[in-house]
Amino acid sequence: MSLLIKDATIVTQDNERKVVRGDVLVEEGKIAAIGDFRSDADEVIEAKGDIVMPGLINTHTHVAMSVMKAVADDVTFPNFLDTTFAIDSNRMENDLRIGSKLGMCEMIRSGTTAFVDLYYSQDIIAKAVDDAGIRGVLCWAVLDEEYTTQKGNPLDNCKRFHQKHKDMCRVTPGIGLQGVYVCSTETIQAAAELSRDENMLMHMHLSETRKEVYDHKREHGNRPTEYLEDINALSERCLFAHSAWLTVNEVRALGRNKCSISSCPVSNMKLATGGVAPIPEMLASNVNVTVGTDGSTTNNSLDMFGEMKVLSLLQKASRWDPTVLPAQQVLDFATVNAARAIGMPDLGSIEVGKKADLVILDGKAPNLRPLTLKNAVANIVYSANPGNVRTVICDGRPVMKDWKILTMDERSVVDESEDALRYLTSKK
Amino acid sequence: MSLLIKDATIVTQDNERKVVRGDVLVEEGKIAAIGDFRSDADEVIEAKGDIVMPGLINTHTHVAMSVMKAVADDVTFPNFLDTTFAIDSNRMENDLRIGSKLGMCEMIRSGTTAFVDLYYSQDIIAKAVDDAGIRGVLCWAVLDEEYTTQKGNPLDNCKRFHQKHKDMCRVTPGIGLQGVYVCSTETIQAAAELSRDENMLMHMHLSETRKEVYDHKREHGNRPTEYLEDINALSERCLFAHSAWLTVNEVRALGRNKCSISSCPVSNMKLATGGVAPIPEMLASNVNVTVGTDGSTTNNSLDMFGEMKVLSLLQKASRWDPTVLPAQQVLDFATVNAARAIGMPDLGSIEVGKKADLVILDGKAPNLRPLTLKNAVANIVYSANPGNVRTVICDGRPVMKDWKILTMDERSVVDESEDALRYLTSKK
Repeated sequence: MSLLIKDATIVTQDNERKVVRGDVLVEEGKIAAIGDFRSDADEVIEAKGDIVMPGLINTHTHVAMSVMKAVADDVTFPNFLDTTFAIDSNRMENDLRIGSKLGMCEMIRSGTTAFVDLYYSQDIIAKAVDDAGIRGVLCWAVLDEEYTTQKGNPLDNCKRFHQKHKDMCRVTPGIGLQGVYVCSTETIQAAAELSRDENMLMHMHLSETRKEVYDHKREHGNRPTEYLEDINALSERCLFAHSAWLTVNEVRALGRNKCSISSCPVSNMKLATGGVAPIPEMLASNVNVTVGTDGSTTNNSLDMFGEMKVLSLLQKASRWDPTVLPAQQVLDFATVNAARAIGMPDLGSIEVGKKADLVILDGKAPNLRPLTLKNAVANIVYSANPGNVRTVICDGRPVMKDWKILTMDERSVVDESEDALRYLTSKK
Repeated sequence: MSLLIKDATIVTQDNERKVVRGDVLVEEGKIAAIGDFRSDADEVIEAKGDIVMPGLINTHTHVAMSVMKAVADDVTFPNFLDTTFAIDSNRMENDLRIGSKLGMCEMIRSGTTAFVDLYYSQDIIAKAVDDAGIRGVLCWAVLDEEYTTQKGNPLDNCKRFHQKHKDMCRVTPGIGLQGVYVCSTETIQAAAELSRDENMLMHMHLSETRKEVYDHKREHGNRPTEYLEDINALSERCLFAHSAWLTVNEVRALGRNKCSISSCPVSNMKLATGGVAPIPEMLASNVNVTVGTDGSTTNNSLDMFGEMKVLSLLQKASRWDPTVLPAQQVLDFATVNAARAIGMPDLGSIEVGKKADLVILDGKAPNLRPLTLKNAVANIVYSANPGNVRTVICDGRPVMKDWKILTMDERSVVDESEDALRYLTSKK
């Protein structure tokens, strides 16, 4: 099947970061042509005045928590942890299923076509990803047995999930280490071995709070990233979430080991964890920087447009330097850098031969106007909002068209989500 | 004419901050009933599952600059000022007209029903406000003659604008002092006198940057707010924009003089001006705190949902305290506090007898779900985006219904905005 998107402003994110006016042809799930050409495609999407951009890639979330919005806002961090863990440990399969589907709807509506998830019961989330028609790198939560409510050994659960799902086309199993505070050296090294043997993403919470850094230092004598390097756990398959409380030496360690990080500024600011990820230093040390929303208990949104803007704002403000993190660089984080982080370099840009994960923004919306080839990227990062996302294509297939989700019955997902919340709150 | 909104979650913002399920009846531009009652209204809006909230009030912007998005992003502050002033001083009446109309469309689409503007040529903006059907407190830019490109004396121009427009129903003329750096003591005192005599809002940029504070101190021996109190310019009619670089003594001066401030966190962060408005201290000193987006060259958006969220995030993050500025308080800033700041206490809440400025959010959107009476306010502040704004009512009249703007030909406004940008950039 072929699909032609006609007469748009195309933000390619190619090596030259070209923005061009023209058509995009999609054939068999891939980009077949860009620019000015003739085509008799099966389906034509008129996009005159619209923006076509690569689908956004959210590199850190816990999507099944999307029904847990606002359960613990504006409270201290210990209170936040107590409340969310109490609800989370009582969740049933049906809650996870509903939460995942609601999150898929949110992500599609805000232009996200791929995401990295860290959670247990990823088999339920895999089913929702499959239904939704987008991509998920689903990292099974791995921690020491003594700290988990999972049945059996978490790493064994992760391996089983990988075996069962490794051949799915839009679901990619990964390893989700909860953090140095609940993972022994043996657990982390076993995870690193699995990552190497099976070429799996090793996703991990790292240095989100000052407390976790200093607790670790007290126990092990070094800082978490130094420790991870010492035990040979760092590799180009590592994607660390938050990574706010890092020294420059730790940043250099991440760089020399070709690691990626997922900055989650909204979550960090809302929880007031104090740290600001040292992004300029990371870029200087060739750390691969990406962006994530974190889960809905901390953000409380899966909106990558808001996340990109806040990331740039926080970095500029905390450095007293408005030239830090220009719009183009932030869009790179959410597209090409994220594609590299998850080991899928055929995502993240609009180039012939790449996979067709595309978002069409309503360029006729007043908040995106005026629109030129020159300001398109700035308008995406600083002016766009999820309401501008008109059509979303993943793997060459439209999953939302003209604001209507095609892959799921959104109304019934939304209705079911009310029941999930009632269930969750009555448990407290 | 009467209008019934049926079966919604109503965020009243009344004195008890009640959130109730029920209907809202609008008659002759005012709220006539709330809750459970019988009515045979002329028009019925089915809002089952939706949120009805007071229209948002943006207390600081320069709406005519909405065609100037992205003209000076990611550059140093001096570069920013040079670029925007160069474009701005070359603008023609038609540019201002188009920019104002585009901004009206943006504001309606993001749930703003009233705004405070600081600019010259407010007569052109007044016409756009009148067409759009929303409310504008239009503060004519006042500064010393030697610093302006205005023809004639700015304060005289302001007086003329006031005389001509003071009887319009949704346009309220105000005074817009540019800042202590371009306004002499005589100019400020004359403005304060006009404000007192005609009961006009005195809107002013105050302590946005460190430089303006220390330049002032060097010249006058005291800080700007101390100086304004010394020359008797502070009153309950004052609304100060930014107000980031303030000492606690200045905050107290604002409090004892019953002043209001408009915090513009996105603009401050994007320009990296370094200061963070001391909101907790302001609240402790009874300063009336409100929120503004600032203009489109700094933000680059007029989205008050994003502004509310970033305001809360910035305060939490800069204080390392997640309990600072809970959602309810931030929503107050954008509704009831803003209504008080502009001297219109019959706005900002949904109560019988108050003016019917209402926004209906699509509560069926996945990013606003689950929705309960308890999480509605948090969902508005932390989860909503402009795409959720379904219907907007101002002064009892729908200005947007089911995402269609009724008062303006949005498509032609958007098309004209392209011409304005081309004109502006070719001038450079």
